Amino acid sequence: MEGGVVLLDFWASMFGMRVRIALAEKEIKYEYREQDLRNKSDLLLQMNPVHKKIPVLIHNGKPICESLVQVQYIDEVWHDKAPLLPADPYKRATARFWADFVDKKMYDSGSKIWKTKGEEQEAAKKEFIENLKLLEGELGDNLYFGGEGFGYVDVALVPFYCWFYAYEQCGGFSIEAECPKLIAWVKRCMQKESVAKSLADPEKVYEFVLHLKKAYGIE
Amino acid sequence: MEGGVVLLDFWASMFGMRVRIALAEKEIKYEYREQDLRNKSDLLLQMNPVHKKIPVLIHNGKPICESLVQVQYIDEVWHDKAPLLPADPYKRATARFWADFVDKKMYDSGSKIWKTKGEEQEAAKKEFIENLKLLEGELGDNLYFGGEGFGYVDVALVPFYCWFYAYEQCGGFSIEAECPKLIAWVKRCMQKESVAKSLADPEKVYEFVLHLKKAYGIE
Repeated sequence: MEGGVVLLDFWASMFGMRVRIALAEKEIKYEYREQDLRNKSDLLLQMNPVHKKIPVLIHNGKPICESLVQVQYIDEVWHDKAPLLPADPYKRATARFWADFVDKKMYDSGSKIWKTKGEEQEAAKKEFIENLKLLEGELGDNLYFGGEGFGYVDVALVPFYCWFYAYEQCGGFSIEAECPKLIAWVKRCMQKESVAKSLADPEKVYEFVLHLKKAYGIE
Repeated sequence: MEGGVVLLDFWASMFGMRVRIALAEKEIKYEYREQDLRNKSDLLLQMNPVHKKIPVLIHNGKPICESLVQVQYIDEVWHDKAPLLPADPYKRATARFWADFVDKKMYDSGSKIWKTKGEEQEAAKKEFIENLKLLEGELGDNLYFGGEGFGYVDVALVPFYCWFYAYEQCGGFSIEAECPKLIAWVKRCMQKESVAKSLADPEKVYEFVLHLKKAYGIE
């Protein structure tokens, strides 16, 4: 445990994927330890006693929890390579605002798409698309949310992409039809090795969602 | 609107108070504009079209939204005075983790104390105290969450204090009896002019809560 970088993670976690992308961008070698979330390890409970959640980043034996905190930590410690946050305070604030928006809005509305049906599901789909359209508006004609370069908001948002297929299958809708520019941005991000190798396979995520639906008794 | 610093705020907002404290710590002159939240101004809607919420910090005509983003912005722009975040990346991550904990946990469990009754209220009180005890554990024997000096987590948490009286009156319990060390920390913070002048009067907050309860039809 002493020294080096360890990531306690779960393969389908969009939050864990953020950290994997950030570590890949910085070319940091680390030990990936897949966690069983139904039977949490002593190490996980000891390293994140407050939230008891993955991902946990362990650096030199000390834990850092919460994915956006981890991504900022990685950016600050390994600051000489592939900066994720811009240098300008106003641009940093804007990036933090949108990453926070992703955290507050995307997970809940996305999860409701596969957890509900009927009117509730329609409302979740509408909310999810509205949130994506706000993000698309912020992206504008830029290559990335970070402008010319891949950055903090890109890292925060792009992992959700590998859940889109499951949302679409469960919700009977097309995200690309609603938000073509956002999907073009996803494809641009996926050309980066750091992203491509960190994201789970959308079909496997869909299988996992079907498994969760069964486990939760959702038809 | 050009130039200078403007704060769109509401007197009883613990989120607005964070920004007032940060601005006071940095001794920044600014124009405070109280907002009518039942009849939102064009300026508020234009400056925070995504969340449509106060506080909004406007600097040189450009908006910054979300209180923790604002506090970090203030700390970065006016970095030569009263640093709020520590310099060490691990300490920064720890501060961000706990400020995020306050955001995720304290508002909801606190609000439920005055919005509910019976079993639901008992559960909210229990959750609220458990969260405060976690914070008390993190504080330990330090003077402030920032260690020897008042810092980011102190700014994030201390505004909740002026709502404690309302929670106690509505919930019929004593926070000081449960968390004496945390209340000692509050008193230490209140000796700072930046805090004392930024926090609302607890009795006025309680009156406001009674008004909200009536407006929402909560007995």
